[in-house]
Amino acid sequence: MSGQGLFISFEGIDGSGKSTQARLLAENLRELGHEVVLTREPGGSPGAEEIRALVLQGDPDRWSAETEILLFTAARRDHVERTIRPALAAGKVVVCDRFADSTRMYQGMSRGDLRGVVDSLHDLMIGMEPDLTILIDMDPTEGLSRALSRKGLEERFEDFGETLQQAMRAGFLALAEEYAQRYRVIDGARGIDAVAADVLSVATDFAASRQG
Amino acid sequence: MSGQGLFISFEGIDGSGKSTQARLLAENLRELGHEVVLTREPGGSPGAEEIRALVLQGDPDRWSAETEILLFTAARRDHVERTIRPALAAGKVVVCDRFADSTRMYQGMSRGDLRGVVDSLHDLMIGMEPDLTILIDMDPTEGLSRALSRKGLEERFEDFGETLQQAMRAGFLALAEEYAQRYRVIDGARGIDAVAADVLSVATDFAASRQG
Repeated sequence: MSGQGLFISFEGIDGSGKSTQARLLAENLRELGHEVVLTREPGGSPGAEEIRALVLQGDPDRWSAETEILLFTAARRDHVERTIRPALAAGKVVVCDRFADSTRMYQGMSRGDLRGVVDSLHDLMIGMEPDLTILIDMDPTEGLSRALSRKGLEERFEDFGETLQQAMRAGFLALAEEYAQRYRVIDGARGIDAVAADVLSVATDFAASRQG
Repeated sequence: MSGQGLFISFEGIDGSGKSTQARLLAENLRELGHEVVLTREPGGSPGAEEIRALVLQGDPDRWSAETEILLFTAARRDHVERTIRPALAAGKVVVCDRFADSTRMYQGMSRGDLRGVVDSLHDLMIGMEPDLTILIDMDPTEGLSRALSRKGLEERFEDFGETLQQAMRAGFLALAEEYAQRYRVIDGARGIDAVAADVLSVATDFAASRQG
């Protein structure tokens, strides 16, 4: 992972533990001597965090699905320009909690047939994908109970029932098939350390295979 | 102008008097018995006004041209959904101070070769144009002195020199040619009342021709 940047994203349903795993991977890679930028979406740059606040606060019906996709794409454009591309250009590892696949899932599949709009906007305004995407896969029954135990301010995307969470899980697994080359699926229904060890192994294997 | 909605936009360089003329047209049409919604861009709905504040406040280099186009398009989508389409569906006249042509001009022409991006986003996410666009045309030397005399908080788009204003004027005149069917060009370098009389005449003639 030296000499060239590496862009790793984490995806998964709420409560899957992906945010924890993103943080642990960043820590573990730093211990191995890599320069790591840990970031998240929506957000990840000062401007994108402001857009995040605009989207996630207030009435859930405040924005239409289409306006929401535009705002998320604006935030992503800023995040890519100000945080991700500069870090990659400096040869760093970027570890990102959610990226465009979350928009493909949540706005493209769960809120009407807008996947085509999401993809067209992505092609037009973003035009990049992670090198490696780690899907922390988990039965939603397990994930939901985790999510409910840490309900915070920004709960609107977690305010879904189990049936919808099952559809989300299936949606992420479908994305993992669609983009099989960059996806690795990891079983998240185990202890944090066991999952973290698999994540680190997947990341270092991927980096080694790219250099080899 | 009864029975069906009518969407009229005003365009022009800063200081051309288009905001004043939009307000006067709204007043004059109301006196003639029409239901009129006077609105503006960026903004025109509660959500779009928040996006407007996000774009126009702070450091001019805060957003890239591409992110700015995405934010303006998000604001326009909200404005169209929440303000413009409901008013037109109710048979009202919508008078709007700036619409997509301002983005075509300011983001598409003045900040790099982004006109194609602006148009692609517009086709994908907005997909509507005004029925009638009134360009208040004026020599920039005249317009600039007007604009400087009322400098306010949101001055970044007015913080341009005269050469650039000349290019803007030419850009709006080019748009008037490109969209000749919906454009009417009015000489703004005259007294407010004379201009307002021409504007009212153009609007009522257009409405009559559409009903005829």
